[in-house]
Amino acid sequence: MPRFNPLVETLAAPPIPSVFAWGNAYDGRSGPMIDLSQAVPGYPPHPDMLRLLGEYAASRAYTGYGPIEGEDSLRTAYGQHVAETYGAAIAAGNVHITSGCNQAFICAAMAIAGAGDAVLMTDPYYFNQETTLAMLGIKTRFAACDPANGFLPDVEALASAITPDVRAVALVSPNNPTGAVYPADLLARIYDLCAARGIWLILDETYRDFLPLGAGRPHDLFGRPGWEDTLIGLYSFSKSFCIPGHRLGAITAGAGVVEQVAKIMDNLQICPPRSAQAAVATALPLLAGWREENRREIARRVDALLATMAGAPAWRVGAVGAYFAFIGHPFGETPSARVAEKLAKEAGILCLPGSYFGARQEGYLRFAFANADVATIGLLQDRLNRFALD
Amino acid sequence: MPRFNPLVETLAAPPIPSVFAWGNAYDGRSGPMIDLSQAVPGYPPHPDMLRLLGEYAASRAYTGYGPIEGEDSLRTAYGQHVAETYGAAIAAGNVHITSGCNQAFICAAMAIAGAGDAVLMTDPYYFNQETTLAMLGIKTRFAACDPANGFLPDVEALASAITPDVRAVALVSPNNPTGAVYPADLLARIYDLCAARGIWLILDETYRDFLPLGAGRPHDLFGRPGWEDTLIGLYSFSKSFCIPGHRLGAITAGAGVVEQVAKIMDNLQICPPRSAQAAVATALPLLAGWREENRREIARRVDALLATMAGAPAWRVGAVGAYFAFIGHPFGETPSARVAEKLAKEAGILCLPGSYFGARQEGYLRFAFANADVATIGLLQDRLNRFALD
Repeated sequence: MPRFNPLVETLAAPPIPSVFAWGNAYDGRSGPMIDLSQAVPGYPPHPDMLRLLGEYAASRAYTGYGPIEGEDSLRTAYGQHVAETYGAAIAAGNVHITSGCNQAFICAAMAIAGAGDAVLMTDPYYFNQETTLAMLGIKTRFAACDPANGFLPDVEALASAITPDVRAVALVSPNNPTGAVYPADLLARIYDLCAARGIWLILDETYRDFLPLGAGRPHDLFGRPGWEDTLIGLYSFSKSFCIPGHRLGAITAGAGVVEQVAKIMDNLQICPPRSAQAAVATALPLLAGWREENRREIARRVDALLATMAGAPAWRVGAVGAYFAFIGHPFGETPSARVAEKLAKEAGILCLPGSYFGARQEGYLRFAFANADVATIGLLQDRLNRFALD
Repeated sequence: MPRFNPLVETLAAPPIPSVFAWGNAYDGRSGPMIDLSQAVPGYPPHPDMLRLLGEYAASRAYTGYGPIEGEDSLRTAYGQHVAETYGAAIAAGNVHITSGCNQAFICAAMAIAGAGDAVLMTDPYYFNQETTLAMLGIKTRFAACDPANGFLPDVEALASAITPDVRAVALVSPNNPTGAVYPADLLARIYDLCAARGIWLILDETYRDFLPLGAGRPHDLFGRPGWEDTLIGLYSFSKSFCIPGHRLGAITAGAGVVEQVAKIMDNLQICPPRSAQAAVATALPLLAGWREENRREIARRVDALLATMAGAPAWRVGAVGAYFAFIGHPFGETPSARVAEKLAKEAGILCLPGSYFGARQEGYLRFAFANADVATIGLLQDRLNRFALD
């Protein structure tokens, strides 16, 4: 039999399906399954969103090929949204639509690095970013995030990890898996570091719409003169509009980056799926109020998580924010996958092991609490307190 | 400014948009534009297809993440369709759904080759396959197809081009750009060559549904014992259902290949867009009769193309079939891009230069005649006969 690409063959199987398998083995003994595994909103899309998706999908106007960079309507609407969010001069030409944020990341990574180059990530990291780089033959460097500092990245640690082959720093804020929200001044210092070292800053802000109430602008980087030569922003429409199944994300970058990404996307899928783009272009301004309500709902879930965890003191909240909490488990050297599997099968709590996000994270679990409502989150306390490993 | 990936930066801009720009510069002097540029069906999707796309897109059931490999319903329906088409034992587990056939190709390529490996292609080739390999750092080898043999690949030429770093032969039949339909016995000999040399055969059959009437099975390769260790089939739903904007394609392969592709797709976009998959799963059996009608219509367009070209004897039909004809122009050493640009701007005929498909193809143009109806195709004769370069 001919060989496979060893970079792909040696990748582990995608982690989410294996976690679902643990959930399927749960017999219900502790009550209904609490699914905190995948970052999906625990509430339905707005009826107008579904109506728009249906209307545009039924239209002949979107059955042909569309522009590689995305529909003009969505590039314009999202460019305006980004401009308002950051108070910056972002236009349609700064936007490249993708099929979700994983695709935005692989396009950004391929645009700036090839096999043998390196990208610097935090540890813990979002696993799909690490496996994406690995399968492309792009090396990864890591800067550890200190749990004592709420898993925020350390600028000195990043600086000292920038080897000559590093082409970019890749960050996620609000973070996946920890939930940590990177302060604007920290992002500014990391941006300055990247600019000074002549490397890119790839900043994934998939969970931006769920920043704490009153948090203000996420950062001022899109307003920096010459930002186009340092910053590549990534985003997903999946979480904010509750439509991950329609696969839409975006890259915000300089026109030069957009030009490179278009060449990659032409090979990757010619254009993103069209009718959903048209629907989201209409929904972006239309559902602004609904998205703000959801932000408040997620904030209530943060409060509920902190309250429930306060009553389960053996389990430590390493960080929390937006969609995720990074929870220290009380079982010392026990591998996190073993804890998570047993939590799923016996306590009916489905979450991801810390080890999926880095070899140093065996002491942690990722709770995607946004997936559960306040009442369900409240059930965690008792289930965690009753849980024993053996 | 930090650097881009040189493998991407040195790629030419995507070719189709630049050809559209020529078309936009046409002033209508020779009559309405005849668009033979992109491989899109020149007739609308069936009303039931649009209805199904709308219904499923409006459903909450498809808003969440779906299986990486594709919806069970579409994998099952397409597996049955392939089984019937080839008279072979193909099941859902042999199918991986993708966002179009370009994505099917990049997934197949990444599964079997990495930077520094090589893939053997025909010359002429489908340009997106060449640029896909180039941006991944995968080297390309070429076996020239003889115009005197209707641009069919030559098995000896392929055999002698298999250097030790070649991991696969990539073929397209019916061919893009030439339209040549590779006979089953030729495909069988190339399959045997690949099996004997321990390399993969990646066979793109995007235009399979437009084989000549009465052509029988495209080939018997899916029925070979152990085919899973040699053959990877690619397909697109875009042409058969007239829905390229919804981006759906498929890989047909052994379970081991599907497993590798799933790891790649998880990084590339987590899952294909879901609601369109559900719609096509329903439409596959429902619209079988309609697709057969379209096959007859395309066959009429082949006849119309041959008839109109017979009256423009300075232009030679190098090959024709399914969606495309590869047309030799009468201007000797003049670069094909110059001929195509002038044809667009003065004769109102939009087509692709042969050079897009290989440096040796300067004498040719690709006519995507499936894009035009019989009456429009009939207009070509007069326009071509009147056309002069200077």
